Amino acid sequence: MRQTRSQTGKMRAPSKLCSALLKDDCFLIATHINPDGDALGSALALAEALTCLGKKTFLYDRDPVPKYYFFLPKHKKFSTDLNKGLKNDPVLILLDCNSPERAALGAASFRKTIVIDHHETEREFGDLRWVEKHAAATGMLVHALIRSLGLKITVSMAENLYTAIAVDTGTFRYSNTTDEVLRTAAELVWAGAEPNVIAEHLYETWDYGRFRLYLMVMNTLERREGVAITHVTAAMFRKTGTTAEDTENFANLPRRINDVKVAVMFRETGSGEWKASLRSKGGANVALVAEQFGGGGHRNAAGFTISGDLATAKKILLKALSKTLG
Amino acid sequence: MRQTRSQTGKMRAPSKLCSALLKDDCFLIATHINPDGDALGSALALAEALTCLGKKTFLYDRDPVPKYYFFLPKHKKFSTDLNKGLKNDPVLILLDCNSPERAALGAASFRKTIVIDHHETEREFGDLRWVEKHAAATGMLVHALIRSLGLKITVSMAENLYTAIAVDTGTFRYSNTTDEVLRTAAELVWAGAEPNVIAEHLYETWDYGRFRLYLMVMNTLERREGVAITHVTAAMFRKTGTTAEDTENFANLPRRINDVKVAVMFRETGSGEWKASLRSKGGANVALVAEQFGGGGHRNAAGFTISGDLATAKKILLKALSKTLG
Repeated sequence: MRQTRSQTGKMRAPSKLCSALLKDDCFLIATHINPDGDALGSALALAEALTCLGKKTFLYDRDPVPKYYFFLPKHKKFSTDLNKGLKNDPVLILLDCNSPERAALGAASFRKTIVIDHHETEREFGDLRWVEKHAAATGMLVHALIRSLGLKITVSMAENLYTAIAVDTGTFRYSNTTDEVLRTAAELVWAGAEPNVIAEHLYETWDYGRFRLYLMVMNTLERREGVAITHVTAAMFRKTGTTAEDTENFANLPRRINDVKVAVMFRETGSGEWKASLRSKGGANVALVAEQFGGGGHRNAAGFTISGDLATAKKILLKALSKTLG
Repeated sequence: MRQTRSQTGKMRAPSKLCSALLKDDCFLIATHINPDGDALGSALALAEALTCLGKKTFLYDRDPVPKYYFFLPKHKKFSTDLNKGLKNDPVLILLDCNSPERAALGAASFRKTIVIDHHETEREFGDLRWVEKHAAATGMLVHALIRSLGLKITVSMAENLYTAIAVDTGTFRYSNTTDEVLRTAAELVWAGAEPNVIAEHLYETWDYGRFRLYLMVMNTLERREGVAITHVTAAMFRKTGTTAEDTENFANLPRRINDVKVAVMFRETGSGEWKASLRSKGGANVALVAEQFGGGGHRNAAGFTISGDLATAKKILLKALSKTLG
C-alpha cells in the first residue's frame, strides 16, 4: 500500500541549484495554468526567499489567483501579464510543472531556465532541473531549498508552504503523506503556520450559494458498478449564483461512499460541451481513461472534454471505465 | 488564535506513573461511554504496551465498539461486561475521562485507581492522576507513556495511536494541532501507521444508505443569523436503512459554510424527544448553552435532549444561541 517510505534524513536541494540562485539577480517564477495551492504557495515562498537574498522576482500565472487562495500572504504579487515580467532579462524558474506550455509561456525565451517540480516529466526542458516525482508537493522541495540556502523560514513562508503541502496531501490524508511530510509540517507550524486557520480557509469558507450548488450536484449522483457519476449544469450555476470555480473539489466528494472506486463529475461548459473530472481511489488509473478521450492527468485525478448530450457521454465513459475496473 | 505553543522538548510521562504500571500485574482499562477514536485507540495501544511488559489487561467500555472502528487492531479485546474484568483484583486505569461515572463503572471498587486524560477535570478522582488538559488527545499521552516505559512502538500501537490523534484533531485541522502533534504523527508513520489507509477508514467508508441519509439531512438545512440547523427523523432512518450511528460527524458538516458560527443537528430519538448536537467554530461556547437545557459538553461540541415538537425546540434553542452569539 505504502508507495514510498522516506528516510529520516532530510531532503536537500542540489548545490548547483543553490549556486545558480545565488549568482543571478532577477528571476521570473512561472507556474501552471489554473494554479492550485501547491503552485501558488510554493511560488510565493520561493519569491520571498529570493527577495531575502536581495534578488528581483516576478511571479507569473496565466490565470488570476482564485478567490479561495486570497488568504495566502503576498498573493497580490502574482501577475497575469507575462510581458511585465520579461523586462530585466530574468532567469526563468518553472515551478510545479515542467514544460513551458503548462505555464502558458508562449514564445517567450530566456537566457537560462530552471525547473523545480514533483510531477512526472513531460519532456526534457530546463538548463537546471530538480524534479522529485516521489515528493508529495513542490512545497516540500521549496522548503528544502530555502533551508539549503541557509535562510530562516518566516511566518509568511511557513503559511504559504504549509498550504502548499496541505493541498497536495489532502491535509495529510492521501498516500503521499510520509513521515517526512508530517515532520516538515511540524517545522512549519513551529515557524508560525496555524493548521486550523489554514484548514478553515481551505475547507470552511463556502458561501451559501456554493453549498446549495453542492447539494444540487450530489442529488444527481448515480452509481454504476463502482463508478459514481454526478453532473453540474449551466442552469444550476445560474440558480445559485455560482461559477465553475465553486465546483473545486466536488468531483472528489462521492469517494466517501465505500464501494465507489472512481468518481466522475461532468460540468456543462456552456458550448454544448462537457468537462469530465475523474477521481480514483487508487485502483484504476484514470489518466489512461482520460487519454482515450483526448485528455490527461495523474493516475488518481484526470479529465477530458466531450461534446454531445450528457446521457451518451456518460454511457461512453462508463464503457471505457468498466474495462479498466475489470 | 493559537491556544498553546508546545516546546520542542517531548512530553514525558510522570515517573510515578511508570513505576505504578511496572509494579502491578493486572489492569482494567476503562474508557468513556459512546467511545470515540481517541478513547478506543489509546486504550488498545496502552493494553498492548502492558501486555508487552507481561501484565494481564482487561478492556472495558459500556458500549460496543462502533462498526466504523472495526479497523482498529485488536479491537475485539474490548468487552461490555464489567464483571469479567473485575476478577483478579485489577488496578483501574481510567482513560480519556476522569470520573468513574463517565465510564459507567457503577458500584465497582478498586484497590488502586489511575487516571490518564486530557479533558477538564470533573472531580478529584484517582490515586494517581495524569491529566494534561492542553494535550490534543489522550493518544498523545499514551504515546509519551509507552516511550517513557522504554517500549518500542509496534505497527498496531502506531495504527491505534495515529487514529486516536487523528480523530481528536480532525486529522490535523483543529486548533489543537501543534507542532508536537505533527511530530508525533510523523513518528507513528515511521513506526508503520499509514495515513491514507486510516483516513479512508475514517472518512471514506460510508455505505450508500448513509450517503442518502446525509443528503436528506443536509436538505433540511435552515440558516438563522449565524446558526445552521438540520434535523434527522426516525422516518429518514427507516427510508435509508440507517441508524443513529450513521449520523456520526453530520452535525459538523454545515460548518463549511462561511457565515455559520454554530451548527446544530436535531435527531429524533423515537420517544417524542430530540437530541440536539451543537458544534461551534470557536466563537460561541456551546457547552454553556447546552447546560441551560440540562446537557453539557465542550466549548466547541456539546449536546442536550429536549421533548416536544421540533419547531418549538428550534425556536427555543435559537433564542438561547442568539444571546451567546450577541
